[in-house]
Amino acid sequence: MARRSVLCHGSRAISLLYGNTLRPLHASLCSASPQPKAGFKPEKVAVVTKTTRYEFEQQRYRYAGVSEEDLKQLLAMKGSSYNGLLERHNIHTSNVEHIVKSLKREGITVQVVKRGEYNEDVVRWADTIISAGGDGTMLLVASKVFSKDKPVVGVNTDPERSEGHLCLPVRYTRAFPEALEKLCRGEFRWLWRQRIRLHLEGTGINPNPVDLHEQQLSLEQHNQAHRFTSMDNLNRTGTLHETFYKPSLLPVRSLNEIFIGESLSSRVKLKSFKPHVNLLLHRASYYEISVDDGPWEKQKSSGLNICTGTGSKAWSYNINKLAEQAVEEVLKIGKSQSGLDIPLNQELIEKVTEEYNKSLVFSPDDSRLFYSVREPIVNRVFSSSRQRGFATKLCVRSRCWDACMVVDGGTSFEFNDGAIATISMSEEDQLRTVVLEN
Amino acid sequence: MARRSVLCHGSRAISLLYGNTLRPLHASLCSASPQPKAGFKPEKVAVVTKTTRYEFEQQRYRYAGVSEEDLKQLLAMKGSSYNGLLERHNIHTSNVEHIVKSLKREGITVQVVKRGEYNEDVVRWADTIISAGGDGTMLLVASKVFSKDKPVVGVNTDPERSEGHLCLPVRYTRAFPEALEKLCRGEFRWLWRQRIRLHLEGTGINPNPVDLHEQQLSLEQHNQAHRFTSMDNLNRTGTLHETFYKPSLLPVRSLNEIFIGESLSSRVKLKSFKPHVNLLLHRASYYEISVDDGPWEKQKSSGLNICTGTGSKAWSYNINKLAEQAVEEVLKIGKSQSGLDIPLNQELIEKVTEEYNKSLVFSPDDSRLFYSVREPIVNRVFSSSRQRGFATKLCVRSRCWDACMVVDGGTSFEFNDGAIATISMSEEDQLRTVVLEN
Repeated sequence: MARRSVLCHGSRAISLLYGNTLRPLHASLCSASPQPKAGFKPEKVAVVTKTTRYEFEQQRYRYAGVSEEDLKQLLAMKGSSYNGLLERHNIHTSNVEHIVKSLKREGITVQVVKRGEYNEDVVRWADTIISAGGDGTMLLVASKVFSKDKPVVGVNTDPERSEGHLCLPVRYTRAFPEALEKLCRGEFRWLWRQRIRLHLEGTGINPNPVDLHEQQLSLEQHNQAHRFTSMDNLNRTGTLHETFYKPSLLPVRSLNEIFIGESLSSRVKLKSFKPHVNLLLHRASYYEISVDDGPWEKQKSSGLNICTGTGSKAWSYNINKLAEQAVEEVLKIGKSQSGLDIPLNQELIEKVTEEYNKSLVFSPDDSRLFYSVREPIVNRVFSSSRQRGFATKLCVRSRCWDACMVVDGGTSFEFNDGAIATISMSEEDQLRTVVLEN
Repeated sequence: MARRSVLCHGSRAISLLYGNTLRPLHASLCSASPQPKAGFKPEKVAVVTKTTRYEFEQQRYRYAGVSEEDLKQLLAMKGSSYNGLLERHNIHTSNVEHIVKSLKREGITVQVVKRGEYNEDVVRWADTIISAGGDGTMLLVASKVFSKDKPVVGVNTDPERSEGHLCLPVRYTRAFPEALEKLCRGEFRWLWRQRIRLHLEGTGINPNPVDLHEQQLSLEQHNQAHRFTSMDNLNRTGTLHETFYKPSLLPVRSLNEIFIGESLSSRVKLKSFKPHVNLLLHRASYYEISVDDGPWEKQKSSGLNICTGTGSKAWSYNINKLAEQAVEEVLKIGKSQSGLDIPLNQELIEKVTEEYNKSLVFSPDDSRLFYSVREPIVNRVFSSSRQRGFATKLCVRSRCWDACMVVDGGTSFEFNDGAIATISMSEEDQLRTVVLEN
């Protein structure tokens, strides 16, 4: 699928540039040019940093008053390398310092914000947000940006370990001034990445809009409350009550994908109130799906993945891609079944595999959704028409015991039997990002 | 892959028949035959029954003192049909009664045991166990049978809703006396299904053998204890302690598969002690794998599935099978890349798809393991040599944050960073089952 040009956004960039808080081009800081180009130079930048594995391990044992020496031993026992983790941590930290220094050198006001401190206030304060980490950090940063005018830039602070396909090309990690220079000169293009929005209705959900800053706590409270509503109400009022909610737009926008499926720690929660019971069940997910207002179809699978163009390179890609081993097998069988003398050399197999996998990826500014049924269960009892395809709108009704909808692998919503999700896209949900040529 | 004959087990069946508690053939009950055939007639049969969805929903609200009328309303609100669930429940119950009556009519002593009451004492008492439910019930029944001499027979009590590939052909569900007759006459063959055994070593595991009856409780206690060992020890003794365990054989045998992967409810448990916090993370699983004592390879994927011949028709099949849509696409690209005029009609696509998918299934008495890497992550940073293949032995070292090994979708073991699992097969772990011709 050929990438669509985003040049049409150029004029929009100019009008936005002069119509909002971004400072117009300063001729003194960049190469002089008689025509003002759509350059970009922010005044206030928030740099959101990831938590490294080293920091995570430290925090994990902090409450136990573990010393560095103890931590080293603990990690060694697990077969992890303390030195290795510390090295990656230092690389990340050093790259963050490089970014911060580069920004300050241009007279830009910088606020460095740890992942855990990042919230809507930070988003409001900054005119640009830089994600300093990997793709996970970019997803987190995006998750709190709801305006399609606020630019978000990703920098991969550990290129050797992180794929960073949402980040700038890796060469800019240690050459960030170059990136700033190009931005200033307009040698870049805006990429408005389409995102997914969710409506939920039915039972077993919490639709009340909550302040994003409070989301974690409120959702938890609401979910716990919901789980015991029946009992509470019975005790208090003598009547049973399960609330049926009308369609509500959820306060999230998905940059990569929505995944719908059974939680692993499924029925156990219902059987006992012991939080750490370790009997995890892999249950198939059972739901009904309607594509573009088409007929409802019952499906059983390992879950449903609905992605954006951005997400078509992420989990969706891994669900659908084929290994050379599989392609070779298909071609061999095709050869033997058709009786034709097809030369099945390694080169052909590689080419076919590559082209097949490439066809799974589409442009981030494409306004279509792409759905994939993960490991569809097709047998005497269940069937599935299409394993994957494009759509403008998807409706999914849960028939699950204890399922969830996971947004960008980071936030989830209960999605139990009776809940109906409507998944769609709207231009207002776009995320404004930057593409620098390599 | 052609099915291997199990006729070689015939003589073994006879020696077992006369060497254990099974009663020898009674000429008076079956068609007379001059030669004693390897017939099979048990004296004490335990019938283990599944929990129907209807029973589950009832139990779910029982504590709230919900009446049938209330339950009906609750289900209706969720879009579920109370009548539908009750109908499936009645079908199952009626089929169980049919089985029990058929057994009693032959003078066999029957004990009907609900799923929750099934334990090692029941296994010891019975000379044969019948699973009355679906494949899930068969897996449960098998999970407590450790002797390769104890026959297990599965009957599918809801053929319209359940696949039952571990059960007798569906025609015997309402014609169980026929099945008993054939067993009696020796018109069947034994199928010793190979199972998987697990050794665990390293940190982050609980290797202590526990009474299966107590397993749920003990595992939980041990897991909770393990999670706080560091802190407890520090408080009590002033020293930090993480136990490194030597290789231990776990008290489980897998009939379908072992699945290794990250739990969904990952880091959240470590950050807070709130059991129902709903921030679920989908994390890729990171581990190292060595096939048949080969070189260690680092992999990142959605998990690793290691199955038996029996399991090759289950989850493994769904992981690896291809939809016609995908096969068609591969053949189309192969055609265009090779420049050959291959006639790609629907019939060819169907045939190729069918043959490809058939090649994923192998015989339950095959002593090999089959491993599949689920959604391998292949990028700048990670690579994977083979996505799947056969093996005699597999070693896996966890590099996961919070992963588990799930046995037959029903029991799990912590499998965190530093833990090493050795996965293999042994003849002594076989499960004795029955194959009746259709």
